[in-house]
Amino acid sequence: MTPHSGRVLEAATLKRLRSLREKKDREALGLFAVEGEKAVREALSANFPFEEIYATEAWPGERTHAVGEADMARLSHFPTPSSVFAVGRLRRPVLPPGALERGFTLALDGVQDPGNVGTLLRIADWFALDRVLLSPDCADLFSPKVIQASMGSFARVPAHTTDLAAALAGLAVPVLGCDLEGADIHGIPPQRDAVVVIGSEGRGLSAAVGRLVTRRITIPRFGGAESLNAAVAAGIVCDCLRKA
Amino acid sequence: MTPHSGRVLEAATLKRLRSLREKKDREALGLFAVEGEKAVREALSANFPFEEIYATEAWPGERTHAVGEADMARLSHFPTPSSVFAVGRLRRPVLPPGALERGFTLALDGVQDPGNVGTLLRIADWFALDRVLLSPDCADLFSPKVIQASMGSFARVPAHTTDLAAALAGLAVPVLGCDLEGADIHGIPPQRDAVVVIGSEGRGLSAAVGRLVTRRITIPRFGGAESLNAAVAAGIVCDCLRKA
Repeated sequence: MTPHSGRVLEAATLKRLRSLREKKDREALGLFAVEGEKAVREALSANFPFEEIYATEAWPGERTHAVGEADMARLSHFPTPSSVFAVGRLRRPVLPPGALERGFTLALDGVQDPGNVGTLLRIADWFALDRVLLSPDCADLFSPKVIQASMGSFARVPAHTTDLAAALAGLAVPVLGCDLEGADIHGIPPQRDAVVVIGSEGRGLSAAVGRLVTRRITIPRFGGAESLNAAVAAGIVCDCLRKA
Repeated sequence: MTPHSGRVLEAATLKRLRSLREKKDREALGLFAVEGEKAVREALSANFPFEEIYATEAWPGERTHAVGEADMARLSHFPTPSSVFAVGRLRRPVLPPGALERGFTLALDGVQDPGNVGTLLRIADWFALDRVLLSPDCADLFSPKVIQASMGSFARVPAHTTDLAAALAGLAVPVLGCDLEGADIHGIPPQRDAVVVIGSEGRGLSAAVGRLVTRRITIPRFGGAESLNAAVAAGIVCDCLRKA
């Protein structure tokens, strides 16, 4: 990548880059943005093929466009801009038929908070899960807050937005649903091939997905909190089921 | 509590309530705000003694001041206001001498993200930990985002902002520090009296606190993520050490 020489962005470029915070514009352009040194660095180390990298002098890595701090402040989606703004091609890979019968799948059923969705991708990456499924009412995978919270894990974890009830129907592998009532997670043996479903924080599992759950599992509660954060619950469940 | 009859807030009241988003104003007034139906409902069910509750007609519970939606939009710290805005007295209880020698303490060393601090309070509440300590460079306990993310757990969990290195020096109980290198958490027996220290996401444990850790513990990693979110890591550690 050879940096362009111009240091002042054209208005049209600025407008295009700024528009990537909106889902409809991301879909129309087929692009999404990654900001922040850590997220861009981790994505690059996972060999994510960025198409454009806008960076100020403070960014030590590669760039396609050198920009000044004033332009970075203008294009950034952050209140406090970082030194780098990278653009990648948005891909929505189709879930191959039969894929869920092998490996460990984390399925997100209506998780709307983008920070939680990003943190869940990071958990899936840490525990080397085989894929993450997102129901269409989850936060968009390519929204700036999801990408930011995933800390580069978006580049490593296969993720598919799909109709969960259709995807889970008729599976031979166990479909474990996290719930406030259910079998103690510590009594469930480690799983090689399974789906774990995490519901929305507000309303738990949806009715359609709840019907396809083969076993409800729960994390023992000792105190007064009504629930755990969805990502915290998923982390505990993955830790328990990935042991050994 | 008898609702005041006026439905239009005075400018001085509005200014006072709006100022509670700033730490210096919270400290000067000795007050903090709780917004959102779920957070206020959970705090009330924990018998938290609110001094003022501003609510629109949509709020089904008690109130001291009935307000219209326009006023609620003006005083709210939320982009989308809820039906309730409650005000409580800010208390900073002193950590009693010798307290850390008994019970399970979660100590936060420089956790700056307020959403994480609130989620950590909720984890401490779920697992019935005895107290949470926060180093002075953690997000402020009474900031709107901490209170919101704690979902009412702020009202149940004893929390103390204190010089961590001073508090942890010379303890007889184990001081377990979460780190990327350390003993596998699954090999550590459940603890009744212990301190677990969670460091900042960016830089881990501080040098001064790191020196007082008696054992470093880690969550086994299977995949590519560089780290886990601090609250997710704490949730896994608490689940492992609280098992009966």
